[in-house]
Amino acid sequence: MENKVYVIGMGPGDAGLMCKSADEILRQCDTIIGYTVYIDLLKDHYPGKEFLTTHMTQEAKRCEMAFEEAKKGKMVAMVCSGDAGVYGMSGLMLEIGAEYPDIKVEVVPGITAALSGGAVLGAPLTHDFAVISLSDRLTPWEKIEQRLECAAKGDFAICIYNPSSKGRPDYLKRACDILLKVLPAERICGTVENIGREGESSKLYTLGELRDAQVNMFTTVFIGNSMTKEIGGRMVTPRGYRI
Amino acid sequence: MENKVYVIGMGPGDAGLMCKSADEILRQCDTIIGYTVYIDLLKDHYPGKEFLTTHMTQEAKRCEMAFEEAKKGKMVAMVCSGDAGVYGMSGLMLEIGAEYPDIKVEVVPGITAALSGGAVLGAPLTHDFAVISLSDRLTPWEKIEQRLECAAKGDFAICIYNPSSKGRPDYLKRACDILLKVLPAERICGTVENIGREGESSKLYTLGELRDAQVNMFTTVFIGNSMTKEIGGRMVTPRGYRI
Repeated sequence: MENKVYVIGMGPGDAGLMCKSADEILRQCDTIIGYTVYIDLLKDHYPGKEFLTTHMTQEAKRCEMAFEEAKKGKMVAMVCSGDAGVYGMSGLMLEIGAEYPDIKVEVVPGITAALSGGAVLGAPLTHDFAVISLSDRLTPWEKIEQRLECAAKGDFAICIYNPSSKGRPDYLKRACDILLKVLPAERICGTVENIGREGESSKLYTLGELRDAQVNMFTTVFIGNSMTKEIGGRMVTPRGYRI
Repeated sequence: MENKVYVIGMGPGDAGLMCKSADEILRQCDTIIGYTVYIDLLKDHYPGKEFLTTHMTQEAKRCEMAFEEAKKGKMVAMVCSGDAGVYGMSGLMLEIGAEYPDIKVEVVPGITAALSGGAVLGAPLTHDFAVISLSDRLTPWEKIEQRLECAAKGDFAICIYNPSSKGRPDYLKRACDILLKVLPAERICGTVENIGREGESSKLYTLGELRDAQVNMFTTVFIGNSMTKEIGGRMVTPRGYRI
């Protein structure tokens, strides 16, 4: 049998928002590897599996563990929240996989927060959009600023991941200040918290109000484009400009 | 019972790439409405349902049909390929839904082509990215040009939907020419065709080569960012800039 490691996007957390293929692979595999928080969400649904975890900053070690377990002949699944390819582990798995040429990496997509959060708010991303993370752990802040500015100038709807954390409580405010140089303060925005998990909630703002909104590492933020409107409490970006 | 219409993203077509919630709703509902091509993909999996279809340009009529059926007391699901919120029907459903205040619209997310195609290619969208459709049926071409230029200037990885159709065979070439004003001809790109369906295939290019690639309405195109590389035939964008 071919040695293979699966990199799986588990979606936002709710079992119903996982793909059927992902669920089947998790049922069949021997070993499930992931960041502690995600393993805790999964554990009870997949009894009898071997679970391996590492902490947030140990991504490379986590990948090596996956390949080493696969080398022993085990069927291994590395899980990520959302989609494995959006700020997830599939890139690093393929990079580290170059050292394990006999083990194939198969990526199974999942519902990323732009989609699951968008569904909660209504339809904020129906037209062209950009996804930007405010985490500067692996990216210089200047690069993030440049992307925010370009996305605003391109009239993209924008979905912001990692808007805040303990170490950087004011990052969403800084991002809004950059956007406000290009976009009007009345621009419709929305936030979703704990998508597909206990305590899910959402709220609409103007961009001016969003600047002072309370967000945390479980919040996903949506900035409308020039056509976005509120309809009955939902955030809606029309599909085109000629309707 | 509350009258409700579900707007469901069915993913790329493969039943395994649909969310479990979407599948459950389709099993429970009375009526499934969608564009002819997608209904044909679903029909055999959901026997005993009432299927209603309209052609591609009749989106508003399709939405009205959904609400009218729900008004009769039926449980109705409107299906879209990929995610209902990404160039899908959830925006228009919420707009038309304003005329049916007693009927709630619930959006169920799905795997959009940026994610399913990305998984086939490897990990092209691991970092910040932009999604742009080249269809000018509902959007002026100048707006599309502006977005391509801004996405390139922001060093976003870019995922292009609707790169070509019978009526506009040279649109990908035109888009590449705009990108090539900002990006080098050596930039790594990839295409995926018939994602999650019969005949799935993928290919890597440079941006210079992509300009002359054969694509069609079932192709999704990926343009790397400045860090994207090829590793063992896969397209990989590293997660950060400091590894």
